[in-house]
Amino acid sequence: MADKAAPDSSRRSERSRRAILDAALELLGELGYPRLTVEAIAARAGVGKQTIYRWWPSKAAVLLDAFTDRGTSPEGAERAGAALPDTGDLEADLKLVLRAAVDQMNAPAYDLPARALTAEGLVNPELGAHFVAQVLEPPLRLFAERLRAAQDAGQVARDIDPRVAVELVCGPLTHRWLLRTLPLTHEYADAVVESALRGILKR
Amino acid sequence: MADKAAPDSSRRSERSRRAILDAALELLGELGYPRLTVEAIAARAGVGKQTIYRWWPSKAAVLLDAFTDRGTSPEGAERAGAALPDTGDLEADLKLVLRAAVDQMNAPAYDLPARALTAEGLVNPELGAHFVAQVLEPPLRLFAERLRAAQDAGQVARDIDPRVAVELVCGPLTHRWLLRTLPLTHEYADAVVESALRGILKR
Repeated sequence: MADKAAPDSSRRSERSRRAILDAALELLGELGYPRLTVEAIAARAGVGKQTIYRWWPSKAAVLLDAFTDRGTSPEGAERAGAALPDTGDLEADLKLVLRAAVDQMNAPAYDLPARALTAEGLVNPELGAHFVAQVLEPPLRLFAERLRAAQDAGQVARDIDPRVAVELVCGPLTHRWLLRTLPLTHEYADAVVESALRGILKR
Repeated sequence: MADKAAPDSSRRSERSRRAILDAALELLGELGYPRLTVEAIAARAGVGKQTIYRWWPSKAAVLLDAFTDRGTSPEGAERAGAALPDTGDLEADLKLVLRAAVDQMNAPAYDLPARALTAEGLVNPELGAHFVAQVLEPPLRLFAERLRAAQDAGQVARDIDPRVAVELVCGPLTHRWLLRTLPLTHEYADAVVESALRGILKR
């Protein structure tokens, strides 16, 4: 009988887990992050509040699992596969990926959870460290690899640290996305790539 | 008698207001933003909770006033006065200001309230708009003026939008500061300025 109960219970757990993660994303869209609560997630998922607290310490932790489970990644990098495109034309490749990142940052399905998790991570160092390690660093590493390849091909200056170069293109886009200072457009992505590649000084 | 009561009441109000703003900053350091409450601020300031809600809608609004009252501004710009330094050497001037910004971002007295207000603004668009307009945009405009002066002096390329150039130097620093991806140092500020000015491409 134990043999039979175990898979049933495991299937039930997986169903509850899935219902909780779906409820967290749905309610985030309906209520906004400040008004999202573990109670509301439990009610929507049809489970007890204690079921959630058995698996996650906070609403932010539920949301992080919901977000990473969905396989969405920032900066549009994963959209382009396991590595950034390398056609040999660094400018075209970066514009392609950053325009995709702009589309993603402007899409509520990405914007809402990624923005909420970023906000929480700013004032909750433990959650912030998980968010950066799981969501942010993987695509930043893909960018760094593409820039290192361009450096090996003699296109990027030898004395440039690929990681600094990555942040030079991703930092400005993240700044506009998070702080909503000015519209985040394809034109802006192009302008950032062009000025990062050639610099702002007159030649 | 009304003539006499008015200034007393106004002095009392100002004393309460000051006590509330001081309490908000003190408690932020002691409790962290997630555990900061209007109740705790009221208790520390020796006022009723309703006194706070008469003047501010939320703990974030109290904190924004406390922060802007103190005259602190981001990006180190105000430290350098009403305009950015202009010695004629754009690279040296930018490094000076950005190193000061790094010191400021690493100092708890700036980091704690600015980080909390940024986090709140990400998921609370009304507060976010106030924070950006009051705290973030003024120094960004000073940077843009300095870059426009360099453009007029023939140092910055004609086809560069000064605002894009500002974000190219400030975006990467803000990214490291907020997301704590890697250490935010003077060396990093220098590397960002150098690569933004000359570009990452091999010449």
